[in-house]
Amino acid sequence: MDPSASGLTQRLAEASQSHLLQFWGELSTEEQLSLTRDLQEMDFEEINGFFRNAMKTSNSSKQEKMDARMEPVPREVLGSVTRDRESLKDWELTGLHCIAQSKVAVLLLAGGQGTRLGVSYPKGMYDVGLPSHKTLFQIQAERILKLQQLAEQKHKIKCCIPWYIMTSGRTMESTKDFFSQHNYFGLDKNDIIFFQQGMLPAMDYNGKIILEDKGKLSMAPDGNGGLYRALGNQGIMDDMERRGIQFIHVYCVDNILVKVADPAFVGFCVQKGADCGAKVVEKTNPTEAVGVVCKVDGRYQVVEYSEITLPTAEKRSADGRLMFNAGNVANHFFSFSFLRDVVQKYEPELQHHVAQKKIPYVDTQGQLIKPDKPNGIKMEKFVFDIFQFAKTFVVYEVLREDEFSPLKNADSQDGKDTPTTARHALMSLHHRWVLNAGGHFIDENGRRVPAIPSLKDGTDLPIKCEISPLVSYGGEGLEELVKGREFHPALMIDELGVHELVKNGV
Amino acid sequence: MDPSASGLTQRLAEASQSHLLQFWGELSTEEQLSLTRDLQEMDFEEINGFFRNAMKTSNSSKQEKMDARMEPVPREVLGSVTRDRESLKDWELTGLHCIAQSKVAVLLLAGGQGTRLGVSYPKGMYDVGLPSHKTLFQIQAERILKLQQLAEQKHKIKCCIPWYIMTSGRTMESTKDFFSQHNYFGLDKNDIIFFQQGMLPAMDYNGKIILEDKGKLSMAPDGNGGLYRALGNQGIMDDMERRGIQFIHVYCVDNILVKVADPAFVGFCVQKGADCGAKVVEKTNPTEAVGVVCKVDGRYQVVEYSEITLPTAEKRSADGRLMFNAGNVANHFFSFSFLRDVVQKYEPELQHHVAQKKIPYVDTQGQLIKPDKPNGIKMEKFVFDIFQFAKTFVVYEVLREDEFSPLKNADSQDGKDTPTTARHALMSLHHRWVLNAGGHFIDENGRRVPAIPSLKDGTDLPIKCEISPLVSYGGEGLEELVKGREFHPALMIDELGVHELVKNGV
Repeated sequence: MDPSASGLTQRLAEASQSHLLQFWGELSTEEQLSLTRDLQEMDFEEINGFFRNAMKTSNSSKQEKMDARMEPVPREVLGSVTRDRESLKDWELTGLHCIAQSKVAVLLLAGGQGTRLGVSYPKGMYDVGLPSHKTLFQIQAERILKLQQLAEQKHKIKCCIPWYIMTSGRTMESTKDFFSQHNYFGLDKNDIIFFQQGMLPAMDYNGKIILEDKGKLSMAPDGNGGLYRALGNQGIMDDMERRGIQFIHVYCVDNILVKVADPAFVGFCVQKGADCGAKVVEKTNPTEAVGVVCKVDGRYQVVEYSEITLPTAEKRSADGRLMFNAGNVANHFFSFSFLRDVVQKYEPELQHHVAQKKIPYVDTQGQLIKPDKPNGIKMEKFVFDIFQFAKTFVVYEVLREDEFSPLKNADSQDGKDTPTTARHALMSLHHRWVLNAGGHFIDENGRRVPAIPSLKDGTDLPIKCEISPLVSYGGEGLEELVKGREFHPALMIDELGVHELVKNGV
Repeated sequence: MDPSASGLTQRLAEASQSHLLQFWGELSTEEQLSLTRDLQEMDFEEINGFFRNAMKTSNSSKQEKMDARMEPVPREVLGSVTRDRESLKDWELTGLHCIAQSKVAVLLLAGGQGTRLGVSYPKGMYDVGLPSHKTLFQIQAERILKLQQLAEQKHKIKCCIPWYIMTSGRTMESTKDFFSQHNYFGLDKNDIIFFQQGMLPAMDYNGKIILEDKGKLSMAPDGNGGLYRALGNQGIMDDMERRGIQFIHVYCVDNILVKVADPAFVGFCVQKGADCGAKVVEKTNPTEAVGVVCKVDGRYQVVEYSEITLPTAEKRSADGRLMFNAGNVANHFFSFSFLRDVVQKYEPELQHHVAQKKIPYVDTQGQLIKPDKPNGIKMEKFVFDIFQFAKTFVVYEVLREDEFSPLKNADSQDGKDTPTTARHALMSLHHRWVLNAGGHFIDENGRRVPAIPSLKDGTDLPIKCEISPLVSYGGEGLEELVKGREFHPALMIDELGVHELVKNGV
């Protein structure tokens, strides 16, 4: 085994990455093979270029400039479920019509690893502890299935919502196995298309690729914006074209409330003739850690919360709302032609963002070091980086309590975005569905429970209530099941009927 | 010792409360004395009347009727810190002028016991774990002191904000001792006036007073609306009149952010000629457990969240806001003449509210029973019950993150309104004061910390920053101390100067 024979030594030297072979002599043949394979796949010149560009962008003092250049989303490009209620039904009908014609696909960003959540498997496989113990993947699959049925019933036509699932190198096999084991949750196997985002090496501040082991590079997925390169690389655009897809709903796996292929959102975007749309929730607290959709130098983008100063975050419009209140929730609409243009033309223009990280590495003695302050960077593209290329960009504002509760962190005191908060958000939504369909809940003493749960015992424990997506996609169709009836929680409504679960039981 | 000699047996029999003496023969002389004393103080006819009226009101099916009768607060009686920014300075000047003339008093509702918080002493004595370890009482005292100084500096006149503190029978002694031990936190002892709210017995559903021990009645404070009876009983209105008080700011001890005698709020109410005003925060989530200020049958009142149905809670105005969004925070303004009328004329018209509770009791065998479902009621009046009598009622909307963070519950996972949330709310506010005064924070690596803290590590740990009320009442006067400077947290600014606290140290 000789790395110089293949020209690798030479390529590494030219790219100033020769240190990657510094432990070559100490590696087993197997390790040498593996390292060679990894290195041969890499385009060092390209990676070095990414590094130079990313650092250049990152070092310019963005913040000072950003504030002055930001403009809020104008009212005329905004659709709102609270302010445009008279149009909602019409948008939904348009969206459902597109779905019935099989023109709508969904695209799931599931490449992230559950590091912060503290699990070693893909987030979509997580069970947040609902009465049904359904995973995020299953919930989303069943929503797709139900939406297909609703469109079919409405338009008396067979239809399909293909589901494109982007994983990363580390999550691909387990994701595919999981779907296969669960028989694709009732969906047609051929309409679920897995593809894989790219990986990039972590680098130190001098642009040297970091070794996490004597024979192993420190690699990470290239951000959810790696989507666009992967779509091209792996023939996904061709697949969409073959199927006649015209509209794509892109979302992130971690939102337990996500309305997959939301017909109202799709219909709004279609009616507005948009090539690109972002679903947002209202940011109401200036220091909430959420990026905001706005215009910068006349083009739409998401400005991350770390990029703005407090006075800008606190700016208000005459109506008292925060001026920059369009909170990004990684939930987007693209037309097929826009997405194709992005993949074919604009993707190379996207800069990588720099995330400074504490990256474990082997030092020149071969010792594994876990640094206690950031020692290098990971490079990522973001899915929203392409807003700038849109010709007709729209924003669609929805209610957080109805549509957004991401799962990011493990349970802990005062934890945000945990399994507990996700579970509570879903049960609270389904509780409201039952009340609005005319059902009631009664407590252990037979008294009706008020609509708004008391906080007197210190924890905001919602009524236990779960409705299968196979029964209702968005609260519809429940009257005949619950109207005028009284239920003891936990209440479970699924395709087998209406069940009251006994305490601590199933 | 013979209860019949004093006529007590007779009085009890007439009031159908003879069971209170059922264990008489088993009591020690001391216990007999104590029970006799408690019983002789009580007006059983009055208590039985309270019970009948309270149960009558409670049993009428309030909810159905309430929804149809509710109207939102009209815009013309609303002042808003976000929507009327151009008037803020003027309101504040008016309020400060009233304070300088010693026309403004504050009245603290501190009769509650820290049961849910899990402590046996008054809530005001609680230390939420700030760097300074100040208690709620100290924070409030220092805000009063500072506000007096600000008014004095502005108007070159000596002034006083008297502080009326309502305790209950159970908290009076420890509260007074605490103030005395701490030398009244720098305030003049003569300007702090303690008084005591009444107590009422708990009763079972048949109107029988509950014994919590063979010789001891189950007693509880009569609600924060017990204020009005206590004001009259204990000569507080006379004291106010003697001092020339014209405006009273009433608030509850548990809000760590409370702007005691808030000059902008006082000034707004005074300029509007209001006899009664309520400070509110915007309710943004329909199922948030907060009462809302609204009109019912043309009169203002607070409708509790348990009284409204979900469809009403979810109603929205054309601007997308919740229609009933004036969230009550137990923070009120009264003119002296209005308060006097309430105490002298209207108080007896106020109905007690019924709270169904699990009340420990001794059964006929003398066994102590801890029931696992509600077995009786406590009767309470609420401080906001008098809104209905106002001739000119106004509402003043402020920002939750600036002014409202109540301490109600012990720390626990997903706990709301805990020591941790209170501490974080105060530090976050003071962090924002420093940023808005031109200061910056830097992390352990010397890099500036973004204004909006990252949530990446799963907990929303704010920058540790505490500013003594003796330095700044509401964010004013900090430029000279922080502008252009960089600080390592924890930052503490107090009357001795600006300190960076070393980690884990003081």
